[in-house]
Parts: sequence; structure tokens; C-alpha cells
Amino acid sequence: MWWLYHFMLCPFSRKVRLLLSEKGVAFELVHIVPWERQPEYRRLNYAAQTPAMQDAASGLVVADSNAICEFVEQTVSAKPLMMGSAEQRAEVRRLVAWASDGFFAGVTRPLLDKAFGLGQHIGDADLTHALRAAEPHVDELGGLLDRRAWLAGPTLSLADLAIAAQLSVADYFGAIDWSGHQEVQTWYAVMKSRHSFQPLLADRMQGLEPPPHYSAIDP
Amino acid sequence: MWWLYHFMLCPFSRKVRLLLSEKGVAFELVHIVPWERQPEYRRLNYAAQTPAMQDAASGLVVADSNAICEFVEQTVSAKPLMMGSAEQRAEVRRLVAWASDGFFAGVTRPLLDKAFGLGQHIGDADLTHALRAAEPHVDELGGLLDRRAWLAGPTLSLADLAIAAQLSVADYFGAIDWSGHQEVQTWYAVMKSRHSFQPLLADRMQGLEPPPHYSAIDP
Repeated sequence: MWWLYHFMLCPFSRKVRLLLSEKGVAFELVHIVPWERQPEYRRLNYAAQTPAMQDAASGLVVADSNAICEFVEQTVSAKPLMMGSAEQRAEVRRLVAWASDGFFAGVTRPLLDKAFGLGQHIGDADLTHALRAAEPHVDELGGLLDRRAWLAGPTLSLADLAIAAQLSVADYFGAIDWSGHQEVQTWYAVMKSRHSFQPLLADRMQGLEPPPHYSAIDP
Repeated sequence: MWWLYHFMLCPFSRKVRLLLSEKGVAFELVHIVPWERQPEYRRLNYAAQTPAMQDAASGLVVADSNAICEFVEQTVSAKPLMMGSAEQRAEVRRLVAWASDGFFAGVTRPLLDKAFGLGQHIGDADLTHALRAAEPHVDELGGLLDRRAWLAGPTLSLADLAIAAQLSVADYFGAIDWSGHQEVQTWYAVMKSRHSFQPLLADRMQGLEPPPHYSAIDP
């Protein structure tokens, strides 16, 4: 059994929750507020970010969401989520990285910084910028879904989990304007209907209510 | 033969240059200024960041430094740089991620933003903060080298390349105070003496001269 050190609205924690659930790996959540940088958590995970995963029996720690995903994919053969040729895997990894460098940096992170009073420089202009930044990103996803059944190719992959995890946090803040993005909306509705997604849709931060459509499964 | 789209002082481009050279993969550099977001490069690599790699013969593009490293490691068997058990690979990947989320975010990126007038918010206070942030990071590397021959374990790995690439850019700006970090300095001197490192030490940006110790191989 694994302990997953997570923050409820951390999109990287959410990616790992989806992955573990899809692969049928048992885990228990441990709540961490990463910006508090608690010494006990830092001893476990020097970077002090979420997520990190610990084997309850052996004490083994795997830190960093990318390292966790590769580790789980390598050690749990059920439901492979990085399949195919080296080129196809590179496409999965490109999109997983884009979820982090593109979508998180431009959209999810400013939303979180603003909501939790982090980042010394986040003003209303940055927030407006983040909301506007979502639009071309969602367009880009639509372009991928024009040519593919799933974001990285013909089968569900870690790219779908990584990007849906980012979108789910932005959507919690009501920051995604779904109108005019029907393909992406349909794909996201399918993601939301998966068993693995249900705990994320039930998440609620005290004092921060999501819009009603956040947990609705029909688009 | 591969074309590597890079920026000379981009630490992620440098990591890939080191990797390709260590593994004996032939490549030619194509200079890109990522923040210019040139349409031609964006068509090739939507994220528009460096590095990206293109097979001159087939046109295949692999974008994102992490996707590139995993792709090269998977397709080129010479000199494996992510070896051992799943746990050992997770440790390599944790450190590769830390080079990006920890060292780059806290040190290298503010230095680059300041040097090239990027980032609307970079003031002298941020720069001072970046210079101070390097110190505990270099300490942490020293802690790893207390117990290991290389950063992630008993053999040279991608973690050494990723972190040396970050340090090399910070060192270009004279931002690393090596005094009191003898173990890290010795490890970095060994990295600098490698054949793969020589092109990086010969790099010069016009109008931005590095300090003399940047390219000196003896510590």
C-alpha cells in the first residue's frame, strides 16, 4: 500500500491519483500544503512539492510526479498508459511536459497563486492573462482531437490524464470557457465519466466552491 | 543525422547536447531564440521552447527535453544513462526534475530573464534572491555526493548531465560561489573535463562574457 502525499487542487497530484486508480494501485491520501514547506515533509522530499509517494511497508519514497508516473508505469503492468513505439511514447511525454510547462505555467499556476495568496507578483492583470491563455491551449487540444481519438494517439495515455488533471483544476476555478470547444468538451466529459475521476469531482476546498458544472458529468 | 534546435545558454538544450554527445549520436545545432516564438519554429514545436530535435531524413520531430532524453535513451543503447532498478531510475528522474523545478525555477531562469530582459517582473531583488537560492541547492548536491560517487548513484547518469547543464549556465553568469563546496566543485570539474562538455565551455554569447573560471577545467 502506498501513501500519496498530495494537495487537493495540485494538478500533478491529480495526475498521479488518476494514474494509480486507472492501474488499480491501492493508495491512501496524505494531505500536504506544499508552500508551508514543513520540515517533516522536506526530510521525505527535498523539493517539498506535491506529489510524493511512499511505500507504507518499505518506506521507499518516490518523489516528483514525472518520476512517479514512469516508476508506476514500469512496475505495474496493468493498463499500460505509455504504449507503442519510441516515437509514440515521445508524443505522450511531449504532451505530459506541455501540461506542465504550457498549461500549468500559463493557466493553472496563476489561478492557484491567486486563490491561495502565493507568488508575490500575482495581480489582476496576471489573472486576466491566465484566463486568456487558456483559450489557445484548449484550441490546440481541439486540433489534436481532430486527428486522434485520444490526445496522444489511438488509445488513452498518460497525456490524457496529465492534461485532464490540469483542466480539472482550472475548471474548479471556473476558468475554462467551454463554448466553441465541443470536441475538447466531449473528450473531457468522457474523462470525467471514468471511475478514476470520481474522487476528483467530489473534492471540495473549504471556502472555495467550484461552479456547478465542475462535477456534472454530462457536458 | 539530427538537427537540434537549441539556445546556447538554455540549460535544457545543454542537457540534450551532453546526452547526445555522451551516447555518440551525430547532431547539428540550429540556433533558436525561444522567446521570439517564430511561427516557423512554432509549427515544428507548438510549445516553441528549446530544445527540439528533428531527424533530417524522416522529418520526425521530438520536442521537450524530457521526451528527447527518454527517446534517445530508449533508441540508442550505447552508454545507458538511466540504469538499474525502477527505484534507481526514479532517483535519476527525481533529480532531473529537480534540476528543472528547483534549480532552474529558482536560479537559472531568473538569471536568464535578467540577462535577456525577459519576464516583466524581474528586478534586482529577484536576482539577489536567485543568487542566494543557489547556495542551499549546491549544499544539497554536496549532501548527495557525500554518499554517492555520482549524483544519483554509483554511475554517471542523466541526473549528472541535467544538473551540470544548469550549473554551467549559472556559472556562465558568475552566479555560483564555489568556495566551501569542494565536493561539488570536484564533481563539476570532472564533468567539465569530459569530452561532451567541451563545446559548452567554448560557447560565448556576444556581449556577455563569462568569468575566466567558466571554461577552466582545473577547479
